[in-house]
Amino acid sequence: MGDSQQQPHSEAAFFMNRALELAQQAMNRTSPNPRVGCVLVNPQGQVVGEGATQKAGGPHAEVMALRDAAGRGQQVQGATAYVTLEPCAHTGRTGPCCVALSEAGVAKVVVALLDPNPRVAGQGIAHLRAHGIAVEVGEGAAQARELNLGFLSRMVRGQPWVRMKAATSLDGKTALPNGQSQWITGPAAREDGQVWRARACAILTGVGTVLADNPRLDVRSLPTERQPRLVIADSQLRTPPDAALFAADRQVLIYAAQLQGARAEALQARGAVLVEMPDARGRVDVSAMLRDLARREVNELHVEAGAVLNGAVIACGMLDELLLYLAPSLLGPGADMAQWGPLTDLAQRVPLAFHDVVPVGGDLRVLARVPGRDQF
Amino acid sequence: MGDSQQQPHSEAAFFMNRALELAQQAMNRTSPNPRVGCVLVNPQGQVVGEGATQKAGGPHAEVMALRDAAGRGQQVQGATAYVTLEPCAHTGRTGPCCVALSEAGVAKVVVALLDPNPRVAGQGIAHLRAHGIAVEVGEGAAQARELNLGFLSRMVRGQPWVRMKAATSLDGKTALPNGQSQWITGPAAREDGQVWRARACAILTGVGTVLADNPRLDVRSLPTERQPRLVIADSQLRTPPDAALFAADRQVLIYAAQLQGARAEALQARGAVLVEMPDARGRVDVSAMLRDLARREVNELHVEAGAVLNGAVIACGMLDELLLYLAPSLLGPGADMAQWGPLTDLAQRVPLAFHDVVPVGGDLRVLARVPGRDQF
Repeated sequence: MGDSQQQPHSEAAFFMNRALELAQQAMNRTSPNPRVGCVLVNPQGQVVGEGATQKAGGPHAEVMALRDAAGRGQQVQGATAYVTLEPCAHTGRTGPCCVALSEAGVAKVVVALLDPNPRVAGQGIAHLRAHGIAVEVGEGAAQARELNLGFLSRMVRGQPWVRMKAATSLDGKTALPNGQSQWITGPAAREDGQVWRARACAILTGVGTVLADNPRLDVRSLPTERQPRLVIADSQLRTPPDAALFAADRQVLIYAAQLQGARAEALQARGAVLVEMPDARGRVDVSAMLRDLARREVNELHVEAGAVLNGAVIACGMLDELLLYLAPSLLGPGADMAQWGPLTDLAQRVPLAFHDVVPVGGDLRVLARVPGRDQF
Repeated sequence: MGDSQQQPHSEAAFFMNRALELAQQAMNRTSPNPRVGCVLVNPQGQVVGEGATQKAGGPHAEVMALRDAAGRGQQVQGATAYVTLEPCAHTGRTGPCCVALSEAGVAKVVVALLDPNPRVAGQGIAHLRAHGIAVEVGEGAAQARELNLGFLSRMVRGQPWVRMKAATSLDGKTALPNGQSQWITGPAAREDGQVWRARACAILTGVGTVLADNPRLDVRSLPTERQPRLVIADSQLRTPPDAALFAADRQVLIYAAQLQGARAEALQARGAVLVEMPDARGRVDVSAMLRDLARREVNELHVEAGAVLNGAVIACGMLDELLLYLAPSLLGPGADMAQWGPLTDLAQRVPLAFHDVVPVGGDLRVLARVPGRDQF
């Protein structure tokens, strides 16, 4: 199984494919901005510049490609720009890309996907057309969408793309009844899990996991230009101020039901950002927390939590996909991946569809998605 | 994933591959005999006869191939016979194949795998060599072994090849807490399950499943020359004499802890074969039952049972492989596939290795095997 590799069957497909590759290379870098790639092709059909979005605050893909062309001493006049997302039309931390492209004299822009960001939303394309630049939209749209599910989710739905990671035996257990869980999956699966952490804007866990395992929950086994933020659902502020997770260089957000007291002060002194988000039962309102994370510019959320928080995420209906590492073993009785329900009818189940199934070491990595959620 | 398809890279490989195809076609037919294919190739390199083992009591592959050649009016003198299993040396329900081959005047026999049946066990090859026929062994051995894991298991280990079929959600549940389980997997997976029933010598279930679902547990959705036998583990003989399973035309074996009484008589009146096989706790001794099934010529056993019997099969250490249909859904709390354990250390887990993973409809079919068990 797995995504079918689309074969470029035209010049536009060929160059857009390269732009998508460049965007892919920016996977772990651009948060909270989208991952975008740009290729400039001169009228002779030669690539004269390439670029991808830099870290937030740095140049976007189009500007990087223009700079690349300048550095190579190449003419951009009359070129076609292939961009995986609509060029921005607003001055944020950088100037508008559509202005940069029109001022550079490109003749045509091929865009994979419109940017639903209300500050762009067609205005980038309108600006280009108003300056006499031909614009085509749609080449490579599916792959461009796939690259930026989180960004699109935040812009369109006001919530992050919620990916839940779990590792279980073939009979669905994350641990033995005595709590033993190290290691159900093998080293290759654990390494692979780091790849998925690295691309996320934030990692979500629960205080139960913090107290039980004292994990760092950062990216260690691969080089990364930034650490994802860490989010802890911690109703009673039980996160120890000396927890290992504070060692990593990144923002720590703690959602609690109440913020007063010495615990809050101690955690703030450790640099944690505390957010009060109670539900009616005095627990963290998980649904409100997830929407708040979108307001805080979290595109992709990597949930790596215990059964309680996993269950709350599932129960609130905001799970988008499951990243499941299946170990080829049977454990018998033990811990399930999520506590929720019970259901009384199969029609209430969380429906998923297999999106990608690949072997990782001796384990199987299953990416399954709630159908329809990836259409923005 | 899946088995790597071996490309024939020599004449021997090419013709043995064809013999393996013929054996494959005999999959659902030969029980309790092995599935064997035979190709006869004349000195000019032309196929002059082909055959596969018929139903028990009918001709073996070699005799079928010789008859095929005779029917075509083809000469077999000086031919090479490609056979997926060592030609038999004993007179059972049919005459010895090694005699048939030597009397037909073949010059050479290429054998994929030796037959561990003590009545053959090298004697077939010895007979051929004693009659001046060249014999080579080993071409296609892996595939030939794979075709006859059950037969080899019975001959070498004195137990059937035990394949457990289960269908679960991605979080490992076979049913909701209220028992609802129809249908967790889709129609394609359920159809595929019939294919695996059809190839088995026998289907094993527990009386709990009989009482809860009143299933027929036969092969209905595909044509078959024979129905697998049905085996019921039923300590207290609670199987109703009017159960739907008696409608199918096949032998029903019921293992119980005690056989006296009216229930035993009623079930015997329905044609069931009753076997007393108690353990120390007054339940069916599952391990003894499995060995007894081998004595009763069960090669491949298809376990399609509830959590109690599944757990007993796992706990007695005789599970060889798991055939798991994974539905892309989450159910939350519910029934696990097997009741056993609990384990206190991960080192006690049932180790498996993924053997074959393929999509079946919207579900995923996982065949996972206890490592090393398939080496005979």
